[in-house]
Amino acid sequence: MDHPVTRVVVDVMLKPEILDPQGQAVERALPSLDLEGVTGVRIGKHIELEVADGAGDPEAVAATVADKLLANPVIETYTVRVEQPST
Amino acid sequence: MDHPVTRVVVDVMLKPEILDPQGQAVERALPSLDLEGVTGVRIGKHIELEVADGAGDPEAVAATVADKLLANPVIETYTVRVEQPST
Amino acid sequence: MDHPVTRVVVDVMLKPEILDPQGQAVERALPSLDLEGVTGVRIGKHIELEVADGAGDPEAVAATVADKLLANPVIETYTVRVEQPST
Amino acid sequence: MDHPVTRVVVDVMLKPEILDPQGQAVERALPSLDLEGVTGVRIGKHIELEVADGAGDPEAVAATVADKLLANPVIETYTVRVEQPST
Repeated sequence: MDHPVTRVVVDVMLKPEILDPQGQAVERALPSLDLEGVTGVRIGKHIELEVADGAGDPEAVAATVADKLLANPVIETYTVRVEQPST
Repeated sequence: MDHPVTRVVVDVMLKPEILDPQGQAVERALPSLDLEGVTGVRIGKHIELEVADGAGDPEAVAATVADKLLANPVIETYTVRVEQPST
Repeated sequence: MDHPVTRVVVDVMLKPEILDPQGQAVERALPSLDLEGVTGVRIGKHIELEVADGAGDPEAVAATVADKLLANPVIETYTVRVEQPST
Repeated sequence: MDHPVTRVVVDVMLKPEILDPQGQAVERALPSLDLEGVTGVRIGKHIELEVADGAGDPEAVAATVADKLLANPVIETYTVRVEQPST
């Protein structure tokens, strides 16, 4: 690729104390699939960003995007990680 | 904890050829934050499952949940990974 | 149709005081489309339910589904309305 | 309000032929609530836009936003309606 990029992943989850109805629906649907043993389901967002090399620290760039456009800090938390290129 | 569990993460993304308007919106919003160098944004779902030990292979259980309740295989792909316990 | 149904719509929105980053992203992306005059964007969920006739009051059934599986009352509100059949 | 606005609602749904796993999860969770008679659940997005008076036809503005930032026309359809002010 002509423009090397770093891939960064941001995962956004509702805080543990915030009820997650979408996760609840999946949890309550499990018996209909005869699935036992799943004791918790939480559903959040998974965001993949490509940051051009030379545009600054990729994790810091991603954190800024998350703060402004991806997560609500009152009800959500997020993690940022650089994805290691597969070789 | 009395009931040991394995934490499994399922990430669901639209297939690369499927337009992602939500990611597009974030991408187009970046100039308003004076952020340069983010060349791609894709938004999917991040699901955290707890699978009780003894309930079968955690990855296989999570894949079944994904197939039935989390992802539409025509437009989405998913990955499953066991989260290593932090020590 | 052999089984007449009533169609009920539930709209779930974040409460006005809760920041909506997804709406913010759309709002901030508008200048890139040369769109002026959109002064607010809020994004929620739109759910369409079919309730079989005879299964009880359709609005009450839909409200129960919303309370348990669609909305988190701490951060969201919802409305329920019966969709009038098109003639 | 100094700047009168028109409120426009855009509802985005997956096309009927596209499987909706999130709706499936809610449907399969209903027996756990002893709810009978809900024969279909589809989950989409509900977007509320405020369009400043004088900025052009509100429905046309909203349709442009939907085309570019809210809906993927290959898998989704949307409707636009002006919300009548409550008096």
